[in-house]
Amino acid sequence: MINPLSSSFVIGFLGAGQLARMSALQAFRFGMQVAVFSDRPEFEPVQFMTPRSFSGSFSDAESMMEFARSCDIITLENEFIDSEILKELRDRSGTPVFPSPESFALIENKRIEKETFESAGIPVTPYAVVRSADDLHRFGQTCGWPFLLKSSKGGYDGYGNETVKSPEEAERAFTKLGGYAGHEILAEGFVNFTHELSVQVARNETGYVVYPCCETVQENHICVAVKAPAPVSPEIQKKAQELALLATEAIDGKGIFAFEFFLTTSGEVLLNESAPRPHNSGHYTIEGCVTSQFENHVRAVCGLPLGSPALMKPAAVMINLLGTRNQSAVIEKAEALLAEPNGHLHHYGKLESKKGRKMAHYTLLGDDVEETYLRAKELSHGIEI
Amino acid sequence: MINPLSSSFVIGFLGAGQLARMSALQAFRFGMQVAVFSDRPEFEPVQFMTPRSFSGSFSDAESMMEFARSCDIITLENEFIDSEILKELRDRSGTPVFPSPESFALIENKRIEKETFESAGIPVTPYAVVRSADDLHRFGQTCGWPFLLKSSKGGYDGYGNETVKSPEEAERAFTKLGGYAGHEILAEGFVNFTHELSVQVARNETGYVVYPCCETVQENHICVAVKAPAPVSPEIQKKAQELALLATEAIDGKGIFAFEFFLTTSGEVLLNESAPRPHNSGHYTIEGCVTSQFENHVRAVCGLPLGSPALMKPAAVMINLLGTRNQSAVIEKAEALLAEPNGHLHHYGKLESKKGRKMAHYTLLGDDVEETYLRAKELSHGIEI
Repeated sequence: MINPLSSSFVIGFLGAGQLARMSALQAFRFGMQVAVFSDRPEFEPVQFMTPRSFSGSFSDAESMMEFARSCDIITLENEFIDSEILKELRDRSGTPVFPSPESFALIENKRIEKETFESAGIPVTPYAVVRSADDLHRFGQTCGWPFLLKSSKGGYDGYGNETVKSPEEAERAFTKLGGYAGHEILAEGFVNFTHELSVQVARNETGYVVYPCCETVQENHICVAVKAPAPVSPEIQKKAQELALLATEAIDGKGIFAFEFFLTTSGEVLLNESAPRPHNSGHYTIEGCVTSQFENHVRAVCGLPLGSPALMKPAAVMINLLGTRNQSAVIEKAEALLAEPNGHLHHYGKLESKKGRKMAHYTLLGDDVEETYLRAKELSHGIEI
Repeated sequence: MINPLSSSFVIGFLGAGQLARMSALQAFRFGMQVAVFSDRPEFEPVQFMTPRSFSGSFSDAESMMEFARSCDIITLENEFIDSEILKELRDRSGTPVFPSPESFALIENKRIEKETFESAGIPVTPYAVVRSADDLHRFGQTCGWPFLLKSSKGGYDGYGNETVKSPEEAERAFTKLGGYAGHEILAEGFVNFTHELSVQVARNETGYVVYPCCETVQENHICVAVKAPAPVSPEIQKKAQELALLATEAIDGKGIFAFEFFLTTSGEVLLNESAPRPHNSGHYTIEGCVTSQFENHVRAVCGLPLGSPALMKPAAVMINLLGTRNQSAVIEKAEALLAEPNGHLHHYGKLESKKGRKMAHYTLLGDDVEETYLRAKELSHGIEI
């Protein structure tokens, strides 16, 4: 591979949404060129940022081959591409792909993911593979009702998951998810928790860095805010950071990774989800940390030394600005939020807003995390987008 | 004008170099689209960052008209376009241009610039319009030899200026600069100074912000480093900041402006140069301040509220990484610099390096400006680009 700090070096993003956009902004700061591959019919955020734009299907390596051959390295903003296709793309194009298809293979199937992390000594939420009505009943009796049913492969942010409250609902959902059609289905127990925590880890051949442990605030299974550091004890923060590093090592990760944990009512830290990419819970790092998750994503996949994840101020809070209407994307009533010292607005450049869609975010730095959270909520209340 | 916080809003840059590139990165963070107009034959930094790329001549409004009509607002990264051409471009395309052609008209001619600032009560370096050999001799007798001869219009970073040590040299330079061919020539006295200072000001209809007073460290008339805050007394810093604001108001500036001052051996603060755009002396603001000069450039020209210019840490130092060889642009031996906590590398993405060309910069934050300066110099020493 050529030196990535070259103006002729091309970093390619599979996926053209806000995560790739914020990573691409950092790639430009390192003097790189950016190529992008989109699988969507509409013009996507990164496509406004480069003349090197490709489109096609993520489920066909051939469709991505011209893109791949035009890049010096390829990275991803999501985990929806089959690891076998990624391997084929890498092997036939000769262009490195990081995180590696081998790492993806360990997390794209939720059963394999759980087994991988459990083998590394990381406590995960209770689960079982379910193959029959009997299995469903048994899981309900052991772990309690309601519980979750998920396909082992596929699913994102609550889609493709079903919450089931009774044996009848469980059988219906099992059928719907394809359990009788050969799809592997996982049952997952609900956990009583006090906080949802998240930790980013960047890792490559030069070493690793672990970001602060933050709290994600969820409403209806959508992350609405992130508080860094998480308002939990230093011991719990440290525990989550240690587990996140262990998990990154367990999949031999090269890139940036996010791990979401439940802090249970009994004080356990259980791994819930992993993401082999920049993550919404790490947007606060752009201004909140010395080196953002996006910068360390680019550094990590390119084999550059990693940057410090230290906080710039004692507290950083990120508020997701979700679409409030279905129309072209314009942010209104943002004056107070822009004028606030230590406030930072990021608009992703998606052409169309939809109710609940992630359109933008706002980060506020401060001295106290709860005060900063209240101020950030107050400022972003009333924003229309 | 449509709301600039819209994903269909297009900000256009006249000029495609590093200043436009760093501004464009901020425009993307606000969700805007970026268009660029280049007057160079080679592919320039911003052209890698947008599918909306135009090229042609800055001396012909017609050549820029298609670009102008595709934009919602136009701004500039240099002051080389004649204000009359800018006016024509604005008036015929209907697209606003900021800073305004009227502001440019007050600074594109060095005599008018000096008169404008003097009328506002701002002390400037000693100067006179010279029209004859007699004028040259008189200036030398009054202000001392050597002195500088400059065309009133044109010239940049020492180019187009001549230092003259004797009446004979003065007459030769006067002829060379076109003094006998109708060009207005300015004589400017040298000033004995202890520090060269610089201050950025952002201003628009919502108000203004004044950045910290920094020191520019020059070698052979090229800025090699910037220290913020400048290691001078708080009173001198405040004086420079006040004069910078006065100067911005004197030209009714809308945008970001930089003003360079001499702190003379007798303690006076004299305005030396002005720049109606982001400036090399303000690169430290990207990580050094809450809101960078580039962000406030975009905010200012778009009429958005301005962001805080407060320092993030007690000290910020910027080192210009100048080309060390003539070849394609690759940064080598950057490992230590990348691994340093609080260090930030920016590579401009120019395809070709040339000895002495501004290719990249490195910003280091710290607690003490002189210690941080020494550390930054040490880290960047040995970089090859």
